[in-house]
Amino acid sequence: MAKTPTIPRDHDIRDEVLPPPPPPLTPKRIAPRRSPAEEARTLLANSTVAALGTLTEDGSPWASLVAYAPLPSGSTVLMVSTLADHGRNLERDTRASLMVAHSRQEVDQLAHGRLTLQGTATPAAEDEREEARLAYLKAIPAANAYERFGDFSLLILRPERVRWVGGYGRMDSVTPEDYAAAEADPTAPGAQRAIDHLNADHADALIEMARNLGGYPDSLTARCVAIDRYGIDLAVETPRGHAPTRVGFEEAANAPEDLRACTVELARQARAGEAVTA
Amino acid sequence: MAKTPTIPRDHDIRDEVLPPPPPPLTPKRIAPRRSPAEEARTLLANSTVAALGTLTEDGSPWASLVAYAPLPSGSTVLMVSTLADHGRNLERDTRASLMVAHSRQEVDQLAHGRLTLQGTATPAAEDEREEARLAYLKAIPAANAYERFGDFSLLILRPERVRWVGGYGRMDSVTPEDYAAAEADPTAPGAQRAIDHLNADHADALIEMARNLGGYPDSLTARCVAIDRYGIDLAVETPRGHAPTRVGFEEAANAPEDLRACTVELARQARAGEAVTA
Repeated sequence: MAKTPTIPRDHDIRDEVLPPPPPPLTPKRIAPRRSPAEEARTLLANSTVAALGTLTEDGSPWASLVAYAPLPSGSTVLMVSTLADHGRNLERDTRASLMVAHSRQEVDQLAHGRLTLQGTATPAAEDEREEARLAYLKAIPAANAYERFGDFSLLILRPERVRWVGGYGRMDSVTPEDYAAAEADPTAPGAQRAIDHLNADHADALIEMARNLGGYPDSLTARCVAIDRYGIDLAVETPRGHAPTRVGFEEAANAPEDLRACTVELARQARAGEAVTA
Repeated sequence: MAKTPTIPRDHDIRDEVLPPPPPPLTPKRIAPRRSPAEEARTLLANSTVAALGTLTEDGSPWASLVAYAPLPSGSTVLMVSTLADHGRNLERDTRASLMVAHSRQEVDQLAHGRLTLQGTATPAAEDEREEARLAYLKAIPAANAYERFGDFSLLILRPERVRWVGGYGRMDSVTPEDYAAAEADPTAPGAQRAIDHLNADHADALIEMARNLGGYPDSLTARCVAIDRYGIDLAVETPRGHAPTRVGFEEAANAPEDLRACTVELARQARAGEAVTA
């Protein structure tokens, strides 16, 4: 059976697979994406719950649930009890791994983003303690109820290795330097609302984007599947089959409120047919 | 400052804490709860996504996202790629830990249940392979698209240690034998719908339950916060303050559809004032 370009190159394919999506018919405007480091920082910034991997007494892995707060450096603050298995584990061996998954409930969560940090989780130093404490209480208001219990301590997990997985076949390692320097997408808290609004009320604009900017002039329908500071991911239906495409904003959005103006401008360009000129 | 009975005994309290909830004023009917083993099996049965803890080459912990399928024994089926970090980790060292968290999105997820299994994840034996494969494809339909890729293999994680945490101060270890023998709560898939319905349409019945069966005759409001095969957890407001209470079904429910009849019967008993006779 023929190998097809739809399958990530790094899979060892035993058998026939789905046909590739139909190619674009017209040139697509360049549509930048978030870098893997930006993806990682965006995941970190938009959740407060993660899985923590630690080591039990005999060096076996132990996975548990923790709340965390992100710090501007991309390190994370944990508040763990030595009464919990993971707290005792970290007292013995500070090596730790934190996994943060895209927090929406999805039918297939493996198709969505997640991040693994690996490093050490050690008590906050005196001069970083107050910043860490305030960051934690801001992220986890319920911690007010237990932070003064004597068995809880404030730890900082400093990542030495960063791995981002965007879904099936999208993944990358990120250097700790790139990770520390990257910015979380500031529009992420407004993304779901924008997606729902575009699909509910602006189906026509989405089709025009797919037809005139996205390379699929034969689009019959176009659904917004993701939006970020740099553009919009569309799922397009054509007489030739289904295809993903992406249309980019002229300028990156810097706040959730900016998504609207960026999208309106994109719709204007699509309507005016400013397809490949930009 | 006085120590109060509201704080789990095992916390080392440094400082004053919230006052205890007001005690019941009348005897409460005995209201059984799910055992820790049943809690663990219920969590396992009601999700397909978990965090996996494995060991990297130097024995450090590595946390990642996986899909899983439960088997009747409480073992879990994983399908992992050797292209993924966790797949390579398990090829080197089969020790693994799986953490499953209550899958609802909560403001404070740490107040809700989670389960950690620890054991080894090894390739399914020839005579268990087909059962494992079918269980996985049933739980994770998307696996149809990748199960034939040569880099994926079917593993079974057999728990040697089981730890359940129900929320703040509710936790227990479960023996592997009790875990293997316990049944998941068959009503769990219908619980959220029942909770929403009771709170939206049956506030009066809930107050009567709290007043006449739950030990709080001075209840002003009563909200259903959880329902399971054995009964209903209520959050009660009284002139003396807020309190939790629980009212138990006469007979355990065996299916999501049974919750309605059990609740109707409980409401009837509450209305009839059959409080402490049962």
